[in-house]
Amino acid sequence: MYPGSFDPPTNGHIDIIKRACDLFDKVIIAIIDNPAKKPAFTIEEREYMLEKSIQGLSGVDVEHFSGLLVKYLRKKKARIIIRGLREMSDFEYEFQMALMNRKLDNEIETVFLMPDERWTYLSSSVIKEVAGLGGNVKCLVPPVVEKMLRRLSK
Amino acid sequence: MYPGSFDPPTNGHIDIIKRACDLFDKVIIAIIDNPAKKPAFTIEEREYMLEKSIQGLSGVDVEHFSGLLVKYLRKKKARIIIRGLREMSDFEYEFQMALMNRKLDNEIETVFLMPDERWTYLSSSVIKEVAGLGGNVKCLVPPVVEKMLRRLSK
Amino acid sequence: MYPGSFDPPTNGHIDIIKRACDLFDKVIIAIIDNPAKKPAFTIEEREYMLEKSIQGLSGVDVEHFSGLLVKYLRKKKARIIIRGLREMSDFEYEFQMALMNRKLDNEIETVFLMPDERWTYLSSSVIKEVAGLGGNVKCLVPPVVEKMLRRLSK
Amino acid sequence: MYPGSFDPPTNGHIDIIKRACDLFDKVIIAIIDNPAKKPAFTIEEREYMLEKSIQGLSGVDVEHFSGLLVKYLRKKKARIIIRGLREMSDFEYEFQMALMNRKLDNEIETVFLMPDERWTYLSSSVIKEVAGLGGNVKCLVPPVVEKMLRRLSK
Amino acid sequence: MYPGSFDPPTNGHIDIIKRACDLFDKVIIAIIDNPAKKPAFTIEEREYMLEKSIQGLSGVDVEHFSGLLVKYLRKKKARIIIRGLREMSDFEYEFQMALMNRKLDNEIETVFLMPDERWTYLSSSVIKEVAGLGGNVKCLVPPVVEKMLRRLSK
Amino acid sequence: MYPGSFDPPTNGHIDIIKRACDLFDKVIIAIIDNPAKKPAFTIEEREYMLEKSIQGLSGVDVEHFSGLLVKYLRKKKARIIIRGLREMSDFEYEFQMALMNRKLDNEIETVFLMPDERWTYLSSSVIKEVAGLGGNVKCLVPPVVEKMLRRLSK
Repeated sequence: MYPGSFDPPTNGHIDIIKRACDLFDKVIIAIIDNPAKKPAFTIEEREYMLEKSIQGLSGVDVEHFSGLLVKYLRKKKARIIIRGLREMSDFEYEFQMALMNRKLDNEIETVFLMPDERWTYLSSSVIKEVAGLGGNVKCLVPPVVEKMLRRLSK
Repeated sequence: MYPGSFDPPTNGHIDIIKRACDLFDKVIIAIIDNPAKKPAFTIEEREYMLEKSIQGLSGVDVEHFSGLLVKYLRKKKARIIIRGLREMSDFEYEFQMALMNRKLDNEIETVFLMPDERWTYLSSSVIKEVAGLGGNVKCLVPPVVEKMLRRLSK
Repeated sequence: MYPGSFDPPTNGHIDIIKRACDLFDKVIIAIIDNPAKKPAFTIEEREYMLEKSIQGLSGVDVEHFSGLLVKYLRKKKARIIIRGLREMSDFEYEFQMALMNRKLDNEIETVFLMPDERWTYLSSSVIKEVAGLGGNVKCLVPPVVEKMLRRLSK
Repeated sequence: MYPGSFDPPTNGHIDIIKRACDLFDKVIIAIIDNPAKKPAFTIEEREYMLEKSIQGLSGVDVEHFSGLLVKYLRKKKARIIIRGLREMSDFEYEFQMALMNRKLDNEIETVFLMPDERWTYLSSSVIKEVAGLGGNVKCLVPPVVEKMLRRLSK
Repeated sequence: MYPGSFDPPTNGHIDIIKRACDLFDKVIIAIIDNPAKKPAFTIEEREYMLEKSIQGLSGVDVEHFSGLLVKYLRKKKARIIIRGLREMSDFEYEFQMALMNRKLDNEIETVFLMPDERWTYLSSSVIKEVAGLGGNVKCLVPPVVEKMLRRLSK
Repeated sequence: MYPGSFDPPTNGHIDIIKRACDLFDKVIIAIIDNPAKKPAFTIEEREYMLEKSIQGLSGVDVEHFSGLLVKYLRKKKARIIIRGLREMSDFEYEFQMALMNRKLDNEIETVFLMPDERWTYLSSSVIKEVAGLGGNVKCLVPPVVEKMLRRLSK
């Protein structure tokens, strides 16, 4: 299971999804439904963008959930959390979360994958900021995301 | 003096308090009263949780203050600030704050203590997030805090 | 071009500006006009503080812009972004931004300068917090900024 | 494949091996044979200590190799490198190595696992230093390693 | 002036040299002659590799020096040190060195440039290690360096 | 107890010693006698330099020891280790050591103090390197150390 906000998905996310599919038989992309974070895109839009971006990959499902991640894992009978490692500060936050999830359910294991270095310093929030100011982010996100971002900034 | 938000206190905080009591004759736990931060618990609740959690320790007072930390230290005739070191990003922020406090009053010294490694990656905000989603945080906070968190999420 | 929020400018910013003037014939200080960030000072106030603080330096202009930084650079026929390196977390964010700007316009180069170590842990937000609580920040900001901060907290 | 010097293996290594066995059908522990590093234990001793420490785990083989890791992976028809993430500086070095291995053979994927937090700050070199000075490291290494360390320091 | 060991030069070094030429009229590549570090290549070999790798760039000289960097700068009437920023740990060391050089001669300014992200995690020592074990580093170093590395490992 | 190599002592070390004397009644400066590290100065020279540098401070003793730090603490009936925090990488190593010492003897507490920011990026090894190349380190070490360094490089 690869949980995240995906608001919106970037090439870094898609890269991690592909690597996960290579390693595991079945991958669930689990969009976190947390209205308190004031996402730029609705759950439906994010689901749509992810599905479009992973067309052709087999063994991947896009779902969404609210509440505690470990409960959702248990419900789906999954026990591996996949996370991408981007950079330093990221690493600390991921560590904190992975330890917390392990404390909540110690059968859960977090597995960290490394994206291609082209996406090392990429984040959804920078993408939104730049796109919102009219910058071209074509080479950083899947085509469908670029289209949605353009619509958003109108 | 051990200043902090303690919103709510965690096992990491209590661990640092015990170590501080071991080193110094008198320790003041100083809750920072900053309504702008929209705390989850009132000053009174935080005071109550801290007092309950340190029962049996001698030489510790729980107080609260608003305004500049160095002024409060001066008023209480204290000159040592105790801080727990958790992790990397923490370290930088603590450094920045310690240097600022030293600039504001150069008789003040900040002393950093290291919590038990079980609490290295623990923070009040993660505790609140997990408890709010119905997760069990019993092994991460004192019993009184767990009770208060459960009441909060209802 | 040295872009930033300068809300307010600190001795660290002024230190970087002086070093930039030493290296380059012409330096544009570009205040980012982003009302979404709810700045404490208006663009006019920040312009006034910067101009007062750099009096006597030649080859420096204070301007402001909204929108994408790379577009403003292009409009001003500038191609070098100057940034001060303060600390670790800073470094990562700056890296991310520099790579993004290079992707948006690959003729743009970001040049990092190192402030005097006295300003290594200095930030506008800490300055505002301390000044707002009545702390003395005289040795950390230019005289005009101190005056403006005092007016603000009244 | 879990490559390393294991000079000697610590509880942190054993913890990662157990997690790897949980995730994958077959795990090869590959001791790097690099005499230039002047190891404290011979390859045979390290093999012996590892085998003793993992008794009862199924699907694990202990082997050793010299030369390029990616070539050994190819020879063994393995394509996943398992690495434990300990701390910050570690993280950078691991990143560098993982990218290099991917460049040398892009079908290879590095998967990072997180040890129990008790072993977060544990390293073979600190173990050797402390044991060499007569310190007790019983709770940090498997029993067989403790015995071998005691013999070494005589 | 761009000082370094260049033992051997990598694509990351060449990338920084190109960026430096773009910013400054004249760039001196200054090979540090420090036999205590037991370099893999002689000064002459490193000079040769650098000269071959920068063919076609104008305004660049390759030189070497021993002793204190700031004295060599002064002798060459240079006052800007160019450094590439690679990663975290690098950043700290560079900071330390830049502050030391500034203390030794405060007219000297260190300017940090950012290499292309493809070279972010690249270092001469990893290159030597991999090449020494028979790995292919063609895409990470200039052609002349690859040839020299191959000769070295025979 | 403030343990270290002090090879040689720098202004950063002296700064920490002064702060420690301010906090504690009695401070033992414990030079680690480890010939394997090939120190530049003998134990006697380091003792002499420290004693000269702290003249006038009361409650400080300079001693030296070999073997395990926690055993020496126990022998001297001390239970607090004082350490200066310099920078990031430092922080990790100190953490690792403090946890190890706590594991070896859990009555021992490590207290971290922050040196003046002028000494944040100062280390004995950089001092030796620069002084060895003929650089002036007068403002970075006590006068007696400068004299000894000059004698060393002849």
